Amino acid sequence: MKTLKPLDAAWLYVDTVDTPMQVACMAIFSLPEDAPGDFIQGLFEHLRSVPRFARPFNLKLASPKLKAVMPAWVEAEHIDLDYHLRHSALPRPGGERELGVLISRLHSHPMDFNRPLWEAHVIEGLEGGRFALYMKMHHSLVDGVGGMRMLQRMLTPDPHARSQPPPWAVGCGAGREREPQSIDAQLRKFMQAARNQLGSAPAVARALGRVVRSAVQRRDPQEALPFSAPHSVLNAKVSAQRRFATQHYDLDRVRAVARAADVTLNDVFLGLCAGALRRYLLEIGALPRKSLTAGVPVSVRPADDENAGNAISFIIANLNTTVEDPLQRLALIHQSTRIAKDQLQALPKAGIDSYTMIFMAPFILQLLAGLGGRARPMFNVTISNVPGPREPLYFNGARMEQIYPVSLLSHGQALNITSVSYAGQFNIGITGCRDTLPSMQRLAVYMGEALEELERALGSTGTAHTTTAKPAARKRGKRAA
Amino acid sequence: MKTLKPLDAAWLYVDTVDTPMQVACMAIFSLPEDAPGDFIQGLFEHLRSVPRFARPFNLKLASPKLKAVMPAWVEAEHIDLDYHLRHSALPRPGGERELGVLISRLHSHPMDFNRPLWEAHVIEGLEGGRFALYMKMHHSLVDGVGGMRMLQRMLTPDPHARSQPPPWAVGCGAGREREPQSIDAQLRKFMQAARNQLGSAPAVARALGRVVRSAVQRRDPQEALPFSAPHSVLNAKVSAQRRFATQHYDLDRVRAVARAADVTLNDVFLGLCAGALRRYLLEIGALPRKSLTAGVPVSVRPADDENAGNAISFIIANLNTTVEDPLQRLALIHQSTRIAKDQLQALPKAGIDSYTMIFMAPFILQLLAGLGGRARPMFNVTISNVPGPREPLYFNGARMEQIYPVSLLSHGQALNITSVSYAGQFNIGITGCRDTLPSMQRLAVYMGEALEELERALGSTGTAHTTTAKPAARKRGKRAA
Repeated sequence: MKTLKPLDAAWLYVDTVDTPMQVACMAIFSLPEDAPGDFIQGLFEHLRSVPRFARPFNLKLASPKLKAVMPAWVEAEHIDLDYHLRHSALPRPGGERELGVLISRLHSHPMDFNRPLWEAHVIEGLEGGRFALYMKMHHSLVDGVGGMRMLQRMLTPDPHARSQPPPWAVGCGAGREREPQSIDAQLRKFMQAARNQLGSAPAVARALGRVVRSAVQRRDPQEALPFSAPHSVLNAKVSAQRRFATQHYDLDRVRAVARAADVTLNDVFLGLCAGALRRYLLEIGALPRKSLTAGVPVSVRPADDENAGNAISFIIANLNTTVEDPLQRLALIHQSTRIAKDQLQALPKAGIDSYTMIFMAPFILQLLAGLGGRARPMFNVTISNVPGPREPLYFNGARMEQIYPVSLLSHGQALNITSVSYAGQFNIGITGCRDTLPSMQRLAVYMGEALEELERALGSTGTAHTTTAKPAARKRGKRAA
Repeated sequence: MKTLKPLDAAWLYVDTVDTPMQVACMAIFSLPEDAPGDFIQGLFEHLRSVPRFARPFNLKLASPKLKAVMPAWVEAEHIDLDYHLRHSALPRPGGERELGVLISRLHSHPMDFNRPLWEAHVIEGLEGGRFALYMKMHHSLVDGVGGMRMLQRMLTPDPHARSQPPPWAVGCGAGREREPQSIDAQLRKFMQAARNQLGSAPAVARALGRVVRSAVQRRDPQEALPFSAPHSVLNAKVSAQRRFATQHYDLDRVRAVARAADVTLNDVFLGLCAGALRRYLLEIGALPRKSLTAGVPVSVRPADDENAGNAISFIIANLNTTVEDPLQRLALIHQSTRIAKDQLQALPKAGIDSYTMIFMAPFILQLLAGLGGRARPMFNVTISNVPGPREPLYFNGARMEQIYPVSLLSHGQALNITSVSYAGQFNIGITGCRDTLPSMQRLAVYMGEALEELERALGSTGTAHTTTAKPAARKRGKRAA
């Protein structure tokens, strides 16, 4: 029996019917040129023929009913592979919309806590003979991008490789273990403190605000502080059902905009999110008068740490959703992220850890203190940009065309936008609360149009990319439930 | 706000993660001859275009979190039809196996208690261009065969009728209201008594046994008494996942066996179940030395009641699974059901109600008292035979080919076999607990072979039915997860 580390355990603690702590990735594959008519069936049978389970695919909770109190893993003696591995199909025409509906549905289904906490779905019936893989795991087993890493580990750049083993036979590798221990230790103390404050929610928020304010001195109006975000529909209490939508561009288009505007790729991504959010919220009459802010994971190297390499921390970016002009908005976002990163970079390692810990804990805090959906949010929306594989990858000869993260939500955080770059593409997965965000697929469409808008403003229209991508982007944006 | 009647409320009281109290029916349709290529898509869009909701499709729980304590319905203000109506597809080849796997999965998914408790799934991709409808409702809204009745109400014998409204626009009709009020009243007292006995499980079982024994005097060795059933794997605690398998015969074949053996159609059905169960349990080394018993709903006319019409009650049939010879087994089953029915028929109305109430309550009792899967079961398996429509029915021109009930399970009752007759067919739905009954699909195969065995024994082989039906029955029986 292996007791969970506090950070892992936290995901079980806050797992509820309305906030299942499951993360996933969805990848679309095209068939090899010489594929027989039953290629997908054969692939499924190949996956099904490997009942070997590496960690963490062989772990289940020792006491599912005590998951929040005494979480511990045991190795499952018998694993019913036919339960975990599932073969599905899209109704015709098998387009982006049908796929979005199915992924939304699969990501809304709770997991069975009496079994190892993962599912793998092979989905056939996509237009053009393509198929999709959807891999779901509980966040207590893998971190946010763990699903992504897991899928990548089973892939190869060799288009001729065959008989590649399924992810559960390969395992997740070092994933979780690489997380800084100090965060865990601090989180334990933090959770204890938060528990002690139960029933005194505003006091917790104030105290936390002070901690962050003292760590990060305010110097610039573009500096976005925690708990200074406006109230918005994105910060309601969430319910159990999810919507999922996708968008993807050529990475070169995003790079060209970044170069022309003299900002980072991540700034352009934030700019696209800001433009789409502004338009969506204006349309539903819910754009706050104050600009929305985003919690953004970033990679930093602590000022006093020469050998530890990069650490993952978070910044809060001002999305400048009150600004109408897209170029001005992008410039201000860039200013906001530069200030936040500079400040973070100047902190010693202990400071970064303490600061990071607070960003990893907000959902825990909000649930523990009953703040979710009521108090002023720490930030309005989580926006992550995950670097992915640069070269095309294959699974048993099938080329991975796109890969998308499917994220989790918590009370007070009804929307998550995560991008992953892959083989010259920029793929975006948008996960939202079904009841809080009606017509959320419009966000995906608007993100496509926001890129065109920036290109036009920068005078970079007329390139081959834009002219061919425009109708595709509109169509792709409809992949949603 | 409408407070639920105690019997309706009971289904919410015992609804748990492992025992979701949802019932469904699944029907397979063939396309009209002149169907365009997008017939199913058109049908789905037609269904989707009717956002009118009759009772009970517009009801949701007033306080989902208090569902067991203070259940009450309110009319939902906004119903998100895209949540309730779902379009799915089978992976190729779209055979009985793939359909069984999908239905097993859909029937294992819990419902969202924040919404009206129903789902309608249109499933395309069945072999031969066919499609299926799967309608799921919570048992607190419809009784066991309610899903069936609901589906029938939306059908017509007219193959040329079009633009027929979906079931949620039509409503369920009188279904639940026709249930005897006296059972509800008694159940309330009964539940209170059971609650008082919490922690004293054996005492409850003994008391209940005495009640039943005093109502039904033992006279014959073929008379099966409640709580005299042997322990068996069918009576374990159940877990959350379900398996579903189907079998269907020509009704004429079953009738011919009944006539030749001089027993009822229901006796033949029990005989087929007994034969298949005996073989399945022998194979997995789990056949009890004492014969299994079945709880069987029957229609009776109380001895002292001239105007009330028929009432639904229950008998316990001795399945004679210890008997090897199929004809002898069938004769003994017939003897057992005749005795049980005669006794029931002789009871006054109050006696029948009291007796019935106990049969409707076993799962409540077992859960309340923590008996589930541990005490001697009241009976081993529930076997119901529901008379269905005699003539072929259509929905917007698509002919219903078969209709199957998908049932619920409770702790201590891991298997349910329900048949429905329809247009010259005898359709059987087998619902089981995934973990308790591995390879449950074999039961469906064995039921097909049990009919052939009876036919051979009675010398009625060589008919066109048998010769053509044999390979088909084997194939059909594989529709399972």
